[in-house]
Amino acid sequence: MSSVPGYQTDKADVLARLRRVEGQVRGIARMVDEDTYCIDVLTQVSAATRALESVALLLLHDHVSHCVVDAAREGGDEAQHKVDELTRAVGRLVRS
Amino acid sequence: MSSVPGYQTDKADVLARLRRVEGQVRGIARMVDEDTYCIDVLTQVSAATRALESVALLLLHDHVSHCVVDAAREGGDEAQHKVDELTRAVGRLVRS
Amino acid sequence: MSSVPGYQTDKADVLARLRRVEGQVRGIARMVDEDTYCIDVLTQVSAATRALESVALLLLHDHVSHCVVDAAREGGDEAQHKVDELTRAVGRLVRS
Amino acid sequence: MSSVPGYQTDKADVLARLRRVEGQVRGIARMVDEDTYCIDVLTQVSAATRALESVALLLLHDHVSHCVVDAAREGGDEAQHKVDELTRAVGRLVRS
Repeated sequence: MSSVPGYQTDKADVLARLRRVEGQVRGIARMVDEDTYCIDVLTQVSAATRALESVALLLLHDHVSHCVVDAAREGGDEAQHKVDELTRAVGRLVRS
Repeated sequence: MSSVPGYQTDKADVLARLRRVEGQVRGIARMVDEDTYCIDVLTQVSAATRALESVALLLLHDHVSHCVVDAAREGGDEAQHKVDELTRAVGRLVRS
Repeated sequence: MSSVPGYQTDKADVLARLRRVEGQVRGIARMVDEDTYCIDVLTQVSAATRALESVALLLLHDHVSHCVVDAAREGGDEAQHKVDELTRAVGRLVRS
Repeated sequence: MSSVPGYQTDKADVLARLRRVEGQVRGIARMVDEDTYCIDVLTQVSAATRALESVALLLLHDHVSHCVVDAAREGGDEAQHKVDELTRAVGRLVRS
């Protein structure tokens, strides 16, 4: 396993998105604290969920682009291990 | 529309869960900052997504228990409006 | 529990949608049988999944409109039981 | 693009799963036809959705194992194209 993660070149973007999600979640807590109407809170929870999923897709893209593709090029059993690991990660993402 | 939201009695629980999600997202940013392996980051993103979805389910439960049930008891068109609004909110949640 | 389901007036629509999903799934099996490219098969699987979710949303809408609203109007404990049951059903739908 | 899909060796399994989903959807139509209680229908719709998602995960696994890994080993731009295509496919699956 390399010490350089697949998202290395997108690191600033990933961090910026996570900061934004953190702000969204804090904003939702503020809405709840101020007794905002349930459906308006729910809409923001859905938006934050979608934002997290789009971070996941970016991480996934970078992981396959670098970690999986590199393992495939190096040959050996590592590529297959990486594919199994990736499939389980996508499974957790779609929760099937 | 009442000024008391459906989640009134669960407010402390909802706020505690949101604080926890905020902490999870901050923890994920720290993992990214420290170049944690992609799949481990993805696993935590999935966990935070699931935690947000369980907040959504709690809000939904409380909304139907109070806002929708109250509107139904009061009679009139408001109940139907509430049902349509709820269906759209669940639709955003499952993104179908 | 009434012998008339909430989807009574939408029954023909629900059945037509389900027949269409059945046809979609049969079409996907045909694509697989003819060695269609993985990504094209996956795209159709996503489309069928989305179609099933939209059937679920229609059933949910009708269930709340009739079964939950009726139980609320009748008073008693049944409304709360219906709300709990509904929340679990939405939970299975979003799999959180 | 090879004429042999990634799921070649799992083809019988993929087809068997799709036949089963087709049967599940037909069974749901029968439940609706017989006025089965909404929540029981919804439970089966969720089960069929989950079964479709697990077909998607199998296709995805096989696609990365063969098509993406092979493209990576051949070198050139095709690997990157395959990764982008895969990310969009996962995006449709999680609908983010």
